[in-house]
Amino acid sequence: MVKKKHTLTLTSHKKTIKAGYQERLSDALLRAGLPMNLFCGGRGVCGKCRVRVVEGRLSPTTENEKTFQAVKHWDTRSRLSCQANVTGDLKISIPPESLVSSVLDPGRAGIPEFPLNPAVKTYLISFHPPTLASPLSLEEICKKSLRKKSIRFVPDVLGKASSHLKDEAEAVYAVLYKDRHVLDIGFYETVYGFAVDLGTTTIVLELVDLVTGKTVAADAFLNPQTRYGADVLSRITYASSPEKNKELQDMVIQEVNRKVSSLIKKYGIRQEAVFEFCISGNTAMNHLFLGLPVQTLASAPYHALFSTMSDLSASSIGLNGNPQARVYIVPNIKSFVGGDITSGLTAVELLKEKGRFLFIDLGTNGEIVLKKGVRFTASSTAAGPAFEGMNLSCGTLAVPGAITKIWHDGKIRFETLDGKKPSGICGSGYIDLLAVLMENGLLDKDGKLLTESKRIELAEKVFLTQKDIRELQLAAAAVKTGIGILLYENRLSPKDLDAVHIGGAFGSYLNIRNAQKIGLIPGLPISKIHFRGNTSLEGCRLFLLSYKTRNKVSEAVSRIRYLSLASHEGFQDRFIRALELG
Amino acid sequence: MVKKKHTLTLTSHKKTIKAGYQERLSDALLRAGLPMNLFCGGRGVCGKCRVRVVEGRLSPTTENEKTFQAVKHWDTRSRLSCQANVTGDLKISIPPESLVSSVLDPGRAGIPEFPLNPAVKTYLISFHPPTLASPLSLEEICKKSLRKKSIRFVPDVLGKASSHLKDEAEAVYAVLYKDRHVLDIGFYETVYGFAVDLGTTTIVLELVDLVTGKTVAADAFLNPQTRYGADVLSRITYASSPEKNKELQDMVIQEVNRKVSSLIKKYGIRQEAVFEFCISGNTAMNHLFLGLPVQTLASAPYHALFSTMSDLSASSIGLNGNPQARVYIVPNIKSFVGGDITSGLTAVELLKEKGRFLFIDLGTNGEIVLKKGVRFTASSTAAGPAFEGMNLSCGTLAVPGAITKIWHDGKIRFETLDGKKPSGICGSGYIDLLAVLMENGLLDKDGKLLTESKRIELAEKVFLTQKDIRELQLAAAAVKTGIGILLYENRLSPKDLDAVHIGGAFGSYLNIRNAQKIGLIPGLPISKIHFRGNTSLEGCRLFLLSYKTRNKVSEAVSRIRYLSLASHEGFQDRFIRALELG
Repeated sequence: MVKKKHTLTLTSHKKTIKAGYQERLSDALLRAGLPMNLFCGGRGVCGKCRVRVVEGRLSPTTENEKTFQAVKHWDTRSRLSCQANVTGDLKISIPPESLVSSVLDPGRAGIPEFPLNPAVKTYLISFHPPTLASPLSLEEICKKSLRKKSIRFVPDVLGKASSHLKDEAEAVYAVLYKDRHVLDIGFYETVYGFAVDLGTTTIVLELVDLVTGKTVAADAFLNPQTRYGADVLSRITYASSPEKNKELQDMVIQEVNRKVSSLIKKYGIRQEAVFEFCISGNTAMNHLFLGLPVQTLASAPYHALFSTMSDLSASSIGLNGNPQARVYIVPNIKSFVGGDITSGLTAVELLKEKGRFLFIDLGTNGEIVLKKGVRFTASSTAAGPAFEGMNLSCGTLAVPGAITKIWHDGKIRFETLDGKKPSGICGSGYIDLLAVLMENGLLDKDGKLLTESKRIELAEKVFLTQKDIRELQLAAAAVKTGIGILLYENRLSPKDLDAVHIGGAFGSYLNIRNAQKIGLIPGLPISKIHFRGNTSLEGCRLFLLSYKTRNKVSEAVSRIRYLSLASHEGFQDRFIRALELG
Repeated sequence: MVKKKHTLTLTSHKKTIKAGYQERLSDALLRAGLPMNLFCGGRGVCGKCRVRVVEGRLSPTTENEKTFQAVKHWDTRSRLSCQANVTGDLKISIPPESLVSSVLDPGRAGIPEFPLNPAVKTYLISFHPPTLASPLSLEEICKKSLRKKSIRFVPDVLGKASSHLKDEAEAVYAVLYKDRHVLDIGFYETVYGFAVDLGTTTIVLELVDLVTGKTVAADAFLNPQTRYGADVLSRITYASSPEKNKELQDMVIQEVNRKVSSLIKKYGIRQEAVFEFCISGNTAMNHLFLGLPVQTLASAPYHALFSTMSDLSASSIGLNGNPQARVYIVPNIKSFVGGDITSGLTAVELLKEKGRFLFIDLGTNGEIVLKKGVRFTASSTAAGPAFEGMNLSCGTLAVPGAITKIWHDGKIRFETLDGKKPSGICGSGYIDLLAVLMENGLLDKDGKLLTESKRIELAEKVFLTQKDIRELQLAAAAVKTGIGILLYENRLSPKDLDAVHIGGAFGSYLNIRNAQKIGLIPGLPISKIHFRGNTSLEGCRLFLLSYKTRNKVSEAVSRIRYLSLASHEGFQDRFIRALELG
């Protein structure tokens, strides 16, 4: 072991650390807990781990460092910590942009930590022109500069490269995909990707800076396909011909394009700088997004065409971005357990942790995954979109004006989102309402309203009907049955569970006790129940920022056991019993 | 070691061989020298190693064999030799199509043997439909059937697959690229590729059956770009703007498309069954083929944009074939030593053999590679297209009517190709003529005609002028100087060479002694000089049929030293001396 005999004073951090003679500066800093941005893996080609020498000396400046000093107009005291070795005592300062702050926003506690390693990276090219004695091809010059033996160009990019790479003084970047394919050559100090939560009802886009790992902005909007039905099945039915299939694809792609355009415009980002899209959706939405037929999902044996797509060209499906931008579809687990659930499982770290967990995603359908040690069982219920407010008299998504909470203090009280005038009731509101009605003897266990009027008025034009209750009973029963069968098949009872993770926007306003009261969620201590928010989006962003996670997850997904609830022998009986509230 | 106690009688081959108990039948046959077609590597998925049991028994029929028996209407005595084990004495017959005859035509002696392993392969899919309990996706069904863990689809192919893979009884094939990417699903018992020798003057297409490795047909035609100049430089000059660059690309791509169409039509092959194009051309032709700018090749330091392209989409450059067809560009060595030379080196096995060799390709330019042990030095002369008959009063390619041989028996005699009426003189004719004139005192060493008339008439409108002689002197001097400098730089003299390999169609009619007489070829014993014919095409076919050769060659090419003749200090002096004939 090297003796750590030198003292490094970090003037920017009011901190003193030790380093060995000839120790790589970045190694010493990392050891001291400073998360240096080693985007290129310490090869000296990304220029993102810069430090500034305040006093003292480092090993001689390398060629790559000289390139950065020249093209980025850094002074000679600016050095790359991955290239410079410690040779004596030193005072340095570290600019904030040279540190990776956690990839996660502070509000995202609980999402696993992972190394920032996007599929798309940008590297400055130090251009050394060819000579008569050594007439290197442009491809060879790039390889040499990027210190990569095998990078690949397509002709279009090579042609562009030849017009850019002429002048040594210009800061030209190569954008690489999976450190192998050159996606573009140009002025790309920063590159961007989109995490797309492709919900049946709502689509959420997150624009991510792939250099820092930080989210720039997000946008949520209605999936335009909803005009052909709120639920998955009506869309599958609509997509009965290749033309209608194409129509549904175009509809969603064009809407994503519009929203992408307006987001990047707002932040002054060029379309060319968008290099990847990660798509997390359920199986049917993923198929429709790619323009693939969905008929096999509509009738027995209900099978999908694919699990995942990677390295797909964005332009081949009409998505706007850089002409060479790529698409990754988060792997579907099975017919009705899609990529959104894979994202969710990844986000809540079910794939890593030990123990027994239940993961429930109450989106348009209710997907449930049970983990028992290393064994996963996944299944999909036919809950339908009731918890998203669909097919209910006054149902709504959690939009301003939606009644999100209901309680009783002698009288039924409620709260709306943003305090706006009540315009409808969202999923959490309905669950509260059923619980409140039961507690006050206005609703029996069979779901029969005991009031004289057969509807409960909350506000002007906002009410609950007996039919709404039936719809909610069916949805809840589907989920309860699913949970029951998964537990039964794994020889577990609810009390054996270490935790229940609930994904989906729905969870945000949910009153757990009320959900337990109507029997939707197993009756565990509240401390074991975790609302995880939009886990589909969280997981999707994780795949965008750490591409090696993709292979691991694909492999894990292929081992998940899929259980078809409808063909389970105990299904009918359990379902009928589950219709009872509580 | 297993005792070989069983006797196998091969009724089709009138031969008896020995096999061990439970020995894989294909192993026993291969050991006995029968080149069974193990296209899929013995995984039982290609069905190309069928044998028929005449008497006796083998191990029980496997699932894959049953699939083949069903969909190909084979009787139950038809077995796959890679799936069946020997369990006793046996009589079998082997149909001819189950044997790989040598990949090479008999006329192609000297080309290295290599295992048939094309990048594009076709496999029968044994379709087992999904079930309710196990609703496998179409992708999973294909993986299972092909016994591949990671194969990749693009949406278009997946959509097509879903319409084909419905009926168990149909023989549906998956066409795989590099055993990973599914290029198509459909009725592809055979798949095809094209080896393309992209000459500056002549383009040769060879249509190859990728299942048997056999050439179906070939076609040669004039490169349509010749209308913008016979030599490379005039085309580079023409391609001065992006529009003209594109025009040159379109011109050659469209002509290749037309010739491909007419060839496959003639042999009843669908365009969809063409899955790969291997392109072997010089650096400038390769750039123009891809529509890439060539200006950097035209002025100092004369550098290229790229060396190789692989996995390129054929449709992206406008080539017709299957929509997913790929293109491979044989790697260029350096600016003026192109992929045609790489092909040539591969075809003459210079990359494998020990010893000291000189490889000369006298196409439009004269490229020369010297091998000394493991060290290669490559260089390009500025010979121009004189040996292809260009820029000479009566010069012509070796077409019918071309004077290919000239001798003297008191009078100048000649022979034309196909015995047609003389229409011009081709390269070998000019070399003969110069030698004959020198021998008979009609031409001095300085290239001055000593006849009274300043032109030599051979036939009506077919003659040689003093200007033609100057042109030939310059071309020969360029080649001689190149050879001299390469030898000098490697501290070798001609007598140290083990062999001289001459590539290019030009060699076919060449009289070696005459070529030595004028000093074009080093004065070695004739037994050391080998005409290799169109080595660019030979090597190109080799890359088409054995894709793993590509990586090996790319690596070898990157180690070749390039010597710029013009900037060599001894060039001027040597060139002037080399102008002397003899």
